[in-house]
Amino acid sequence: MTSPGSTTASAHRIEHDLLGDREVPADAYYGVQTLRAQENFHITDVPLHHFPRLIEALAQVKRATARANHRLGALDDEHAAAIEQACAEIVDGSLHEDFVVDMIQGGAGTSTNMNANEVIANRGLEILGHAKGDYDFLHPNNHVNLSQSTNDVYPTSVRLAILLTFPALTEAMDHLITTLRAKGEEFADVLKMGRTQMQDAVPMTVAQEFNAWATTIEEDVERLTRSATLFQEINLGATAIGTGITTDPRYSQMAAQELAELTGVPFVVADDLVEATSDTGAFVTYSGVLKRIAVKISKICNDLRLLSSGPRAGFHEINLPSVQPGSSIMPGKVNPVIPEVVNQVAFEVIGNDLTVTFAAEGGQLQLNAFEPVICFNILESTRIMTRAMNTLADRCVSGITLNTDVLEDYLRHSIGVVTALVPVIGYSAATDVASTALETGRPVAELVLERGLLDERRLESLLSPDSMTSPHRTTNTGTMPVIPDAGLDSGEITRLPLDPTTEG
Amino acid sequence: MTSPGSTTASAHRIEHDLLGDREVPADAYYGVQTLRAQENFHITDVPLHHFPRLIEALAQVKRATARANHRLGALDDEHAAAIEQACAEIVDGSLHEDFVVDMIQGGAGTSTNMNANEVIANRGLEILGHAKGDYDFLHPNNHVNLSQSTNDVYPTSVRLAILLTFPALTEAMDHLITTLRAKGEEFADVLKMGRTQMQDAVPMTVAQEFNAWATTIEEDVERLTRSATLFQEINLGATAIGTGITTDPRYSQMAAQELAELTGVPFVVADDLVEATSDTGAFVTYSGVLKRIAVKISKICNDLRLLSSGPRAGFHEINLPSVQPGSSIMPGKVNPVIPEVVNQVAFEVIGNDLTVTFAAEGGQLQLNAFEPVICFNILESTRIMTRAMNTLADRCVSGITLNTDVLEDYLRHSIGVVTALVPVIGYSAATDVASTALETGRPVAELVLERGLLDERRLESLLSPDSMTSPHRTTNTGTMPVIPDAGLDSGEITRLPLDPTTEG
Amino acid sequence: MTSPGSTTASAHRIEHDLLGDREVPADAYYGVQTLRAQENFHITDVPLHHFPRLIEALAQVKRATARANHRLGALDDEHAAAIEQACAEIVDGSLHEDFVVDMIQGGAGTSTNMNANEVIANRGLEILGHAKGDYDFLHPNNHVNLSQSTNDVYPTSVRLAILLTFPALTEAMDHLITTLRAKGEEFADVLKMGRTQMQDAVPMTVAQEFNAWATTIEEDVERLTRSATLFQEINLGATAIGTGITTDPRYSQMAAQELAELTGVPFVVADDLVEATSDTGAFVTYSGVLKRIAVKISKICNDLRLLSSGPRAGFHEINLPSVQPGSSIMPGKVNPVIPEVVNQVAFEVIGNDLTVTFAAEGGQLQLNAFEPVICFNILESTRIMTRAMNTLADRCVSGITLNTDVLEDYLRHSIGVVTALVPVIGYSAATDVASTALETGRPVAELVLERGLLDERRLESLLSPDSMTSPHRTTNTGTMPVIPDAGLDSGEITRLPLDPTTEG
Amino acid sequence: MTSPGSTTASAHRIEHDLLGDREVPADAYYGVQTLRAQENFHITDVPLHHFPRLIEALAQVKRATARANHRLGALDDEHAAAIEQACAEIVDGSLHEDFVVDMIQGGAGTSTNMNANEVIANRGLEILGHAKGDYDFLHPNNHVNLSQSTNDVYPTSVRLAILLTFPALTEAMDHLITTLRAKGEEFADVLKMGRTQMQDAVPMTVAQEFNAWATTIEEDVERLTRSATLFQEINLGATAIGTGITTDPRYSQMAAQELAELTGVPFVVADDLVEATSDTGAFVTYSGVLKRIAVKISKICNDLRLLSSGPRAGFHEINLPSVQPGSSIMPGKVNPVIPEVVNQVAFEVIGNDLTVTFAAEGGQLQLNAFEPVICFNILESTRIMTRAMNTLADRCVSGITLNTDVLEDYLRHSIGVVTALVPVIGYSAATDVASTALETGRPVAELVLERGLLDERRLESLLSPDSMTSPHRTTNTGTMPVIPDAGLDSGEITRLPLDPTTEG
Repeated sequence: MTSPGSTTASAHRIEHDLLGDREVPADAYYGVQTLRAQENFHITDVPLHHFPRLIEALAQVKRATARANHRLGALDDEHAAAIEQACAEIVDGSLHEDFVVDMIQGGAGTSTNMNANEVIANRGLEILGHAKGDYDFLHPNNHVNLSQSTNDVYPTSVRLAILLTFPALTEAMDHLITTLRAKGEEFADVLKMGRTQMQDAVPMTVAQEFNAWATTIEEDVERLTRSATLFQEINLGATAIGTGITTDPRYSQMAAQELAELTGVPFVVADDLVEATSDTGAFVTYSGVLKRIAVKISKICNDLRLLSSGPRAGFHEINLPSVQPGSSIMPGKVNPVIPEVVNQVAFEVIGNDLTVTFAAEGGQLQLNAFEPVICFNILESTRIMTRAMNTLADRCVSGITLNTDVLEDYLRHSIGVVTALVPVIGYSAATDVASTALETGRPVAELVLERGLLDERRLESLLSPDSMTSPHRTTNTGTMPVIPDAGLDSGEITRLPLDPTTEG
Repeated sequence: MTSPGSTTASAHRIEHDLLGDREVPADAYYGVQTLRAQENFHITDVPLHHFPRLIEALAQVKRATARANHRLGALDDEHAAAIEQACAEIVDGSLHEDFVVDMIQGGAGTSTNMNANEVIANRGLEILGHAKGDYDFLHPNNHVNLSQSTNDVYPTSVRLAILLTFPALTEAMDHLITTLRAKGEEFADVLKMGRTQMQDAVPMTVAQEFNAWATTIEEDVERLTRSATLFQEINLGATAIGTGITTDPRYSQMAAQELAELTGVPFVVADDLVEATSDTGAFVTYSGVLKRIAVKISKICNDLRLLSSGPRAGFHEINLPSVQPGSSIMPGKVNPVIPEVVNQVAFEVIGNDLTVTFAAEGGQLQLNAFEPVICFNILESTRIMTRAMNTLADRCVSGITLNTDVLEDYLRHSIGVVTALVPVIGYSAATDVASTALETGRPVAELVLERGLLDERRLESLLSPDSMTSPHRTTNTGTMPVIPDAGLDSGEITRLPLDPTTEG
Repeated sequence: MTSPGSTTASAHRIEHDLLGDREVPADAYYGVQTLRAQENFHITDVPLHHFPRLIEALAQVKRATARANHRLGALDDEHAAAIEQACAEIVDGSLHEDFVVDMIQGGAGTSTNMNANEVIANRGLEILGHAKGDYDFLHPNNHVNLSQSTNDVYPTSVRLAILLTFPALTEAMDHLITTLRAKGEEFADVLKMGRTQMQDAVPMTVAQEFNAWATTIEEDVERLTRSATLFQEINLGATAIGTGITTDPRYSQMAAQELAELTGVPFVVADDLVEATSDTGAFVTYSGVLKRIAVKISKICNDLRLLSSGPRAGFHEINLPSVQPGSSIMPGKVNPVIPEVVNQVAFEVIGNDLTVTFAAEGGQLQLNAFEPVICFNILESTRIMTRAMNTLADRCVSGITLNTDVLEDYLRHSIGVVTALVPVIGYSAATDVASTALETGRPVAELVLERGLLDERRLESLLSPDSMTSPHRTTNTGTMPVIPDAGLDSGEITRLPLDPTTEG
Repeated sequence: MTSPGSTTASAHRIEHDLLGDREVPADAYYGVQTLRAQENFHITDVPLHHFPRLIEALAQVKRATARANHRLGALDDEHAAAIEQACAEIVDGSLHEDFVVDMIQGGAGTSTNMNANEVIANRGLEILGHAKGDYDFLHPNNHVNLSQSTNDVYPTSVRLAILLTFPALTEAMDHLITTLRAKGEEFADVLKMGRTQMQDAVPMTVAQEFNAWATTIEEDVERLTRSATLFQEINLGATAIGTGITTDPRYSQMAAQELAELTGVPFVVADDLVEATSDTGAFVTYSGVLKRIAVKISKICNDLRLLSSGPRAGFHEINLPSVQPGSSIMPGKVNPVIPEVVNQVAFEVIGNDLTVTFAAEGGQLQLNAFEPVICFNILESTRIMTRAMNTLADRCVSGITLNTDVLEDYLRHSIGVVTALVPVIGYSAATDVASTALETGRPVAELVLERGLLDERRLESLLSPDSMTSPHRTTNTGTMPVIPDAGLDSGEITRLPLDPTTEG
């Protein structure tokens, strides 16, 4: 790649590298190394530019390193300006279609890095008034890649790319959380039967159920955010193996500062650059959180499908909005297609996490050669999870309605309410009532009154919605001891903050 | 979808379904249900037509069912002919771009089935001289989907699609096997040190190593082929849940026969159609074999990277061909990029298998709603594994060369050859020789002669290449008993068939 | 280990190996190498003898090799007899407690092999009238391990061990199948609603559901059996790396024949012993089938928990037998604890399969050093799956009862039955009826009659149990064409064999 | 369980529960519900008491709840004192052998909770002077389980149990880190070739390599610690489904405070108890970190096995200590058995994480019924990882020695050092030198001097150890621009802190 590429009269120019001469399409901004990589890695049909944020990240990193090199005097004004402008154009969305290498590639990202180096050099050459391929005037390695190795700029770019895709995912999560909480608000006072192990348990409000789904995703936002901060630690300046060979001692910090300034991300250089260069721990962690989100969102979709099962032979507590006809053969059937597609996204993300795990475990000595497949899987998981969250919020959750008659019916016939009486009538008497209720189909309340276990007023109080769906002070009537205030300042004990607006 | 779609003066026609009216692009062969599915499932950007074999399979299944319906008199000549011709065109590669639904979709494949029904109906309408959307004349459900449910035609199509992609994969495997065996032939007489647990063990030939790689892939071809036969059992005629509701008792066998005739695949109808309709066992098995292949090919690539490590500070036994410059910073570096990309394909396939596992486990009651993600992952794994096998054969294995001086050097200095002497000089004396050799760096042979444990002729015979790389009858000289022929007809005992041409 | 161990007056004897002298408990049958391994591998607290079939397998392999060595004259009568007797005693259950090494161990199984060699040598010494540790008279390596390497006897033993545990697993599966089919028989004529995607679909019999579960496990028995046959291919005689170094050319076949005779398993020697020595493909395949079984049994348990959900606020179609009180707080609650424990066994087995996958992928060059963890996981998965199957059959399935009133109620109110009318009244009219039924809660039949779509006799016929749960020839009344016999010999077309006794 | 158990004259007493009467061994502290669970769950042979920290945690939780109940007046002095004492004894190690239920169990932990309730009640009865089984005086449910449900005390106990096993794991990790850093110190000044993608790259110090391993584990300590804090959020007081039914409003906070006081762990009650009761996110996260540790430790062991490969036909840079003879057939062979066993532990932990993932995903509605298998796998992973870390430190890393002649030899012949010259002589000239060096085997330095690219003094400076293993300011001589100080206060730029004592 050292000699200037001579453009042929035809639609090709000649470029040269270690392996010899090759014709490159005359209008291509990429060069010979990209061409070889494209030929070598015909795998997924997914080119780099399928992930625009990755291209943007590469350009930002190249821009930051050019600035650092310029400040250090290693790049002169002209070269630096050309590189900067080329990178800025890419950040703005130009030239993406020239990032053609397959997302799954050998070489630990070298082909991605060289793709960037070549596109930037050739665009820079144009800016400087030279022909594409005249690398004497601006060289992909000597200038664009100056003070760099694939082994530091590629991981840094991947980290930045993930950070650039992170806001859309958390926004989608927030959108889902808001949608769930709005539903919780809408259904605040509706009672329903809670279930454990698929069996009727005790009453709760519909709001408590929707809010629990919101809370669980909320915790994931926190986990994801924390784990994203790991990507702020980069190894720019590590070059080949972390020893910083070929770099000026001031370069590493300076490049990180420039990148921080360009992106607004408070990047810091890792303390142990040798470790940082081979380590993929942050990817494993982040992918693990994506898996955790997948596990939870899958559980929520399982719940939604369960609660909307029916309409006759199922739970039929809630109705999911119809978004398409359900069946090619069964007229009138409407299926929970949105939760189903989200379940499948979750399964995909869990599978992707395993790929990341294998790739991380396979790293050897001073480098992990398998970062490209890690990058591919994390960006893909992020994208499909983002879309899945928005789809779930907008095409399913927001349109959920309740079958209040069904909910009431379940409550009225449930024997689970007997649990609320245990602290007052004891476990044995309660068990007896439960058994009889189950056998005869008679309501628990009726049996309790009939047996004189409680008077009507007391029973009604114990079975009040508020009493059954939150902690409640009881006044003992039988074998169980009265619970006094016993020196406790009840002001100190906060009631369960089930109000959605205060939940964390 | 029951009323004819009225094409607007503009570029749209109006179609109708359960959820109301929608504008469909006038030139689209797909209809309103496809449109809704496209909107509902914005997930991967990978449309159905990314897998042409799946489109072909859908068309073949629709053609077979139309033929069966026609033979049974359920479809008249005109309808049947229109459907047949539309399907034939699709099989020949037309109209694929109208299969636009996302590969990951809710609805258990209903949207894929309706996409096919709509495209075939609209193309059929054209053939019959009607406008697209005039479903009174040819209806996606009443005619194209006659006697069918998504729940039988979709799994059948997916099975056929996998069978259609199977030959390319096995051809690629065969190609790799042939390439490895050719290398084995080329290196037939070259000795090298075998290694166990990364430590020097005993000598072998380079051919034995290459042939072992070939054999292990060969076994996978057999496993994959056997497991592919599971896909010959289909559930056509099961309709919604396997009870065959809406079908004629003769239909199921007849449709399977027609499909067999059209495709050459000896399809049979499952005995228990209820089971067959919810079961995903064959997918789990096939994906498991793909995983097994991934595990093995990854191991082979690990070996190749290990044996080619160096050139100075590594094993340096073999050289992989240079296919691109290795580094953006280290001049002259050439990296094992082809094995590396194949490793990553293997990791991807292993991850995909986990996705399949989750999807299979998640099936409920009479249907598995998650077959779309199963289909996606198996087709994707098949494709990238096929390409990886060909890439590995053509861009790596075929160009491998040996560093014979290195191989010889390892052999000459190895103490592992002492193992060949154990049956004659005993474990204790051999251990002593080994320890001294290791400490002093002196060759084993020299020490054995010096200690008078064996004479030169005997030693040479024991350390001959043939003696060390295959079973060998020894004549005892010391503590170990002579092994006589003892009534054995040696003709019955075949020598290890290490000749590559006879290995199975 | 070359010098005779001298027993001290105290409770120890001294043994010697490469690393020096060590005290071994005087009454221990194991020796110094086992002792070191025990110290080196303090990992799981699960010793080898936790799996008696593995100990039995090791003894059988040692016995077979002793016989082969004896036939070849490499072992004299006395040594051979002593080894044979020691092995026979171990096969009969003696000395197992001396197999003390941890199941997870480094060394590729060497410590397991040496544990066996030492126990057999020491027991053999006793038989011959010598003291334990007097290895001059019978040596763990020179005699017990003659013509062997860990790298052939260990994989062979593991294969045999799995084959020895295989019958119990398939018996348990058969037991579950029989139990499910008996229930199918018991519930043969009971109708219920089938469901797809958790939504009401069309009717089926309870028998069809139970039989489908039976069929799906039945297919797994077949898959498991087929995959177990892969273990019949062994690498005895391969010794260190498959080249058969130190063995007589006749030994390999002879040892395999002896092992076949001893065990009744038709063992054959692999064609390519180099491949066979490093390959773990058969383990990956078998573990993959165990995973497939896990996936299916988990799905069945999910179904059971779903169908028994309630008793008020769930499906409540079936009752699982009560095997223990369900709750420490909710009186009268009975939970599906048996399906729950089986689900968890399934998850465990799926996790174990991943461990096997990683271990298989990690193999390098001429050996996979990670077979011990593969062995551990497959034996563990087999054991817990066997117990889970029996538990599920005996403590759950066999006691299942139906809530026939619930089943009937679901059927009566379902709109899914409208599907049976589609071939006669058409998709559009059927959709209209379905919508009205859903909105008004009125039965489908009533609406069809009211609208004059069918007369009562015809309707009754279409909605008959037989008509709805199997293919059925219809006589057309409306827009859909009559289906004639059209040249078909109906005798050739077999009716769907839904009779459980004929299902394969 | 309400009637007093009447001890028979024989070795049994009779106990009663919902399902009827059963004989319980007279001396057993557990009762009828434990007995049933033991019979129902015959799965792994691993009883609860295999994990003493879990038993301890259960007792602490029961003690804390008794204290809270006592403070609230719900338990009288006598009952509270008896429960407290029984719990204290268990914490001190007594009665563990009565915790007999299988670790894998159905019922969402109910059997574990009832096992604890029964043992504590019966020991309490003894303390109070009553016979075992006389539950009228102290009842497993009414008193020991007061204000509790399995669904809050079980998850809380599991969280505490994990926290109790956490210190041993982090101590083991710290021990390994210290051992690695000590080795780094020992090898501080030794140069070696760094490698990327298994190919020679550029020089580094042995210390940098050992320190990178230490750093990567150090980061895991931080991740694990952070993720352990998630377990400080508990759901005590949630009872059945998080609504706190049967509890006093003050109970939840009070019980958490008591538990905090007893254990020193700053427990807090979750804000959203409904979410907290069904959520398994913290387990998924913690298990994910264990997986991350497994991935890294496996990578380190892979490196150790690679660097110690040989002794003749491998890298042979380092020697692992011999801890046992390596082979049953190859005399003198020493294998890397310790890294091998640690690799296998890593694979086991990764498999366990998948089991946790499946169990977490499978949770439904208000409870995850599969926490027992989650608990089992996390405790098992923690235990074996702890042992593996200590084993690796003490039996491998601490005894590693270097082959300095090999290291020097690799360096001397490597062409990778040419990279250090690139900033001065340019990429093209450097590539030429590299190619010639590779072809001719001549040293890079010799060629550079011969070609007059640099003078001797300059060359020596560039190839000095310090220059090659850390960033270095160069003085340009050729085509590349001089790097001036350019307005940078070099005091602000910290040199890479490769000193191990300052690394974070």
